[in-house]
Amino acid sequence: MASSSRPMREQVEEYICSLQENIVSAFEKVDPDAPAFKRDSWTRPQGGRGLSCLFAVPHPSTGLAPQHECVLEKAGVNISIVHGTLPPAAVKQMRADHSSIPSELDGKSLPFFAAGISLVIHPRNPHAPTVHANYRYFEITEPSEGQEGQGQGKVIAWWFGGGSDLTPSYLYEEDAVHFHKTLKDACDPHGAAIYPTFKKWCDEYFYIPHRQESRGIGGLFFDDLSEEPHKRFLGDTNAQRPHTPADIFAFVRSVGDAFVPSYLPLLERRMHAPSTERERRWQLLRRGRYVEFNLVYDRGTKFGLMTPGARVESVLMSLPETARWEYMSDMGGDGEGSPEGRVTLVLKNPREWV
Amino acid sequence: MASSSRPMREQVEEYICSLQENIVSAFEKVDPDAPAFKRDSWTRPQGGRGLSCLFAVPHPSTGLAPQHECVLEKAGVNISIVHGTLPPAAVKQMRADHSSIPSELDGKSLPFFAAGISLVIHPRNPHAPTVHANYRYFEITEPSEGQEGQGQGKVIAWWFGGGSDLTPSYLYEEDAVHFHKTLKDACDPHGAAIYPTFKKWCDEYFYIPHRQESRGIGGLFFDDLSEEPHKRFLGDTNAQRPHTPADIFAFVRSVGDAFVPSYLPLLERRMHAPSTERERRWQLLRRGRYVEFNLVYDRGTKFGLMTPGARVESVLMSLPETARWEYMSDMGGDGEGSPEGRVTLVLKNPREWV
Repeated sequence: MASSSRPMREQVEEYICSLQENIVSAFEKVDPDAPAFKRDSWTRPQGGRGLSCLFAVPHPSTGLAPQHECVLEKAGVNISIVHGTLPPAAVKQMRADHSSIPSELDGKSLPFFAAGISLVIHPRNPHAPTVHANYRYFEITEPSEGQEGQGQGKVIAWWFGGGSDLTPSYLYEEDAVHFHKTLKDACDPHGAAIYPTFKKWCDEYFYIPHRQESRGIGGLFFDDLSEEPHKRFLGDTNAQRPHTPADIFAFVRSVGDAFVPSYLPLLERRMHAPSTERERRWQLLRRGRYVEFNLVYDRGTKFGLMTPGARVESVLMSLPETARWEYMSDMGGDGEGSPEGRVTLVLKNPREWV
Repeated sequence: MASSSRPMREQVEEYICSLQENIVSAFEKVDPDAPAFKRDSWTRPQGGRGLSCLFAVPHPSTGLAPQHECVLEKAGVNISIVHGTLPPAAVKQMRADHSSIPSELDGKSLPFFAAGISLVIHPRNPHAPTVHANYRYFEITEPSEGQEGQGQGKVIAWWFGGGSDLTPSYLYEEDAVHFHKTLKDACDPHGAAIYPTFKKWCDEYFYIPHRQESRGIGGLFFDDLSEEPHKRFLGDTNAQRPHTPADIFAFVRSVGDAFVPSYLPLLERRMHAPSTERERRWQLLRRGRYVEFNLVYDRGTKFGLMTPGARVESVLMSLPETARWEYMSDMGGDGEGSPEGRVTLVLKNPREWV
């Protein structure tokens, strides 16, 4: 499925490596006196490698805590490029969304390749929103003689997935609009159907049923995007969306490149806002909801925790430094009566921002 | 299945109400200057009632925070007595452990009754352990004319479940021994097989696979205990265990009554221990693991979150006030080299305490 002379897997690997570096250096420039991100490279015994870039503020008890209050509280920008063998059950499950996997392969294990970038940024200031983004490429290949897991065989199926979404503790409408507009502007040149379709998917995905509210104010979410028919576009046969490998990769690069301009201006605008203990308390309660979503519902997290040999520390890097739970909290239930109520209303009734 | 002149459901309701009151007042006496537990009674539109007794320290931002440091940080002692109709899928699932449910009832909805007490105590001091206990009674009855959900029909199946377990941040062997010995002493008069069987079950149940460690240092766990054969005793046909409704209820009362003596002496011993910021940090990291277990694995929590109309605030009352996550924390990985390492070793290798 190489659209240029180079295999897609190589192109994706190169892209996510450079995107990771760009994102990490952008955050390091915002707060030059904070500790640098810790670069932690790893290899997977079953095949592959990764580079985790993590930010944490040393706990006061370590004696290493910085003198100033850091802009970020906890953050991770991780990439992984792995390959291996998918068990028959996983192959069968993937066939539901990828008809290019022939049914003759039922009951067979197949080589896979996966490369992705995944990031979560939890800033310290309660007025600065948490943000998450993830872009990934997946390939299933024919078994190749003597090179099991190296995935040098012919590509049977491939797809891209990903997205980006914003989780504010306090609602600033101009921030929500900027975030969504930047993503929409990155989508639109690649097909008018993309933004509305993936925005809606995002609202549906990042939903916490037991709280009857969304995790945040949305963004984009998509999966299984390839040249095959796609369930999310089925109702609209004229849907404008990319189809070829090159066009889909161009779309993914476009939204990947939009991450920094979608988020950094919001961070810079809010990171030194005055805040109260009450606002900090609300932020930590919201972080509790973030933990609930990620541990109870997030497919990536669940998949990661269930996968033997998965790197748990990377899977759970999305969790905040601190979260708080109160029984029947008195915060957030008063609708328009308070800033906490106002953001809660929006989480219960997702809006169109652009 | 009434063994005395009164139906078991009435006897259980009476018992858990009085146990709740005894437990709450025991904690209130330990720290008389702390705010009282908040009593929050509720009714379930579909049938039933409950009383939640909750302790929380008001956040500093409220201006209501007490002058002294409270012994408890967050605690809940809840009872619920509910009835309703079990959907066919649930009936079918329960038949796996309860052969007294006839297969003719497959595909039918049946009335149920459930009464239980559930509690979690998170003390403030890092040297004082968290504790959890839960005892419950479940009944399935024949549909009764004109009284759907009132459960006045003949009892088709019934069982007790429950247990109690301890989660210390720091290991004090004498505390672990006291806790287990008190439970064992409560079990032994009811059958020599009970403690070893349910202790083992507890170690298996409160396990966090992705961390490869136990949530705590164990206690008792059991379910589906009735006059029917029980899967946990199958290997031992002479297993000494209670069989009749009256004998099983007597065993449950015995371990329920053992809660306060199993735990309160530990709390009193540790609640004023000097502690450092580092120890507080470790306690909050351990609370993070507690959250991971409860949200990812605990059957009661998962069932509660998935049940439409469930009282989410009660389901999640087990979560701590605050939890912390660090990527690749430097605490706890050094084995015998530190107190944090020592408790981690025990969590990875459950011990026999008595």
